[in-house]
Amino acid sequence: MVSHQLKIRTRYAETDQMGIVNNGHYLFYYEEGRNALIRDLGISYKEIEARGTMMPLIDAQIRYLKPAFFDEELTLTTSIKEKPLSKIVFHYEITNEKLEIINQGTTTLVFVDSKSFKPKRIPDFLADVFKPYF
Amino acid sequence: MVSHQLKIRTRYAETDQMGIVNNGHYLFYYEEGRNALIRDLGISYKEIEARGTMMPLIDAQIRYLKPAFFDEELTLTTSIKEKPLSKIVFHYEITNEKLEIINQGTTTLVFVDSKSFKPKRIPDFLADVFKPYF
Amino acid sequence: MVSHQLKIRTRYAETDQMGIVNNGHYLFYYEEGRNALIRDLGISYKEIEARGTMMPLIDAQIRYLKPAFFDEELTLTTSIKEKPLSKIVFHYEITNEKLEIINQGTTTLVFVDSKSFKPKRIPDFLADVFKPYF
Amino acid sequence: MVSHQLKIRTRYAETDQMGIVNNGHYLFYYEEGRNALIRDLGISYKEIEARGTMMPLIDAQIRYLKPAFFDEELTLTTSIKEKPLSKIVFHYEITNEKLEIINQGTTTLVFVDSKSFKPKRIPDFLADVFKPYF
Repeated sequence: MVSHQLKIRTRYAETDQMGIVNNGHYLFYYEEGRNALIRDLGISYKEIEARGTMMPLIDAQIRYLKPAFFDEELTLTTSIKEKPLSKIVFHYEITNEKLEIINQGTTTLVFVDSKSFKPKRIPDFLADVFKPYF
Repeated sequence: MVSHQLKIRTRYAETDQMGIVNNGHYLFYYEEGRNALIRDLGISYKEIEARGTMMPLIDAQIRYLKPAFFDEELTLTTSIKEKPLSKIVFHYEITNEKLEIINQGTTTLVFVDSKSFKPKRIPDFLADVFKPYF
Repeated sequence: MVSHQLKIRTRYAETDQMGIVNNGHYLFYYEEGRNALIRDLGISYKEIEARGTMMPLIDAQIRYLKPAFFDEELTLTTSIKEKPLSKIVFHYEITNEKLEIINQGTTTLVFVDSKSFKPKRIPDFLADVFKPYF
Repeated sequence: MVSHQLKIRTRYAETDQMGIVNNGHYLFYYEEGRNALIRDLGISYKEIEARGTMMPLIDAQIRYLKPAFFDEELTLTTSIKEKPLSKIVFHYEITNEKLEIINQGTTTLVFVDSKSFKPKRIPDFLADVFKPYF
């Protein structure tokens, strides 16, 4: 397993007239979380793309447990629990400043060739990055 | 069952450097879909809020089957299949101009009091709107 | 001069906790407006990019005269008033359902080569599209 | 004069298919910048709103000098150069990791009553916060 924590300050524009962070923005938080996790492993998603692999989502599941409000500092924990082969599953948990779990989710991504957009197995250089953790 | 179709033109800013509509924007499309469905029933979400009820999400599930590209006219079909009581489940299906199903999802919303944010059953005026369909 | 009108329905997620459409979304409306104007001239921005030209912004000016609210149908008028050479200036005016002018703006875009990102003059095929209007 | 620096990591979803941060997102960066500046003065924008004042934009001017790319750490400097009375003008300058100035802008905000949305002078508690700097 590999895991990473990221602080996210909620933006004013992310709230809606309900006075809470709009449900749509959590997928952007998740994206920040997995890019931060990957960067933390010593490789950037930018580099993965530069080497010919893109990682589009095929599935997302989100549970909204409590609302988030403007100007809160959230803690997003992003984890990979299983060795990635043809897919990679990220797990997310968000806590607020009161340490309440406010959101949980998973996203499943696949590896595709940057040019053809065809699915492929995880490229070797990336499998090597994950090896120590699984 | 009640159902509604909405045309959505993908925006340039919704694409990312992968050249496809970023995964996060589908939840905004879903929101447009359910507001259009509600409007079509003769009541607006604006009015629901004005009458003291808000409808936050508690769950979202999204399956990304094929990418969407800039300047496509997508067709979003939003449906409610079960009579809403304390929850309301919306189903979504998006097709592209080639009539391919590119995305499917569901979101579950609850009814809460606008001031206290406390959960409650569907208010009567809204239950009446849905009555003919279930 | 060439001009185009587009109807835009404000999205819930575009509001913020002030209860109005957040100021940041107007630039996305403008983008929709100029893409719709270009499409209306018989060429799509997609095609412009496919033929090796991209059009990044170098300047934007926005005047917020009145707020826009959720679920309003706005009318965005996008105009080009001067023949584009190395730059192209778009003018925008947004009215609400009460026919009040709520927003005015301009954006200046340049033509750059898709690969090198180097500035260049308007490509001939695009100059031809604008010729009848200036 | 009062000034504040904020680090902003560009998000993947903020890029568009041009491969650069979409022009629309800079207004969200500006919003983060001014909220961070205000927080740094010992008061939060949240508190300003709670005390009955909202600060909508009436004008924005943005100059895009160079593109920003995914996963860059930008430095946003937000400044107030003149004592705010009925308006408050924020100045922004963004530099990238190579210390190039990539973006400059200003936004003008007014003070309005939270309930009536009517313009008013800066409230006393907020004028006091700015007093030491002008």
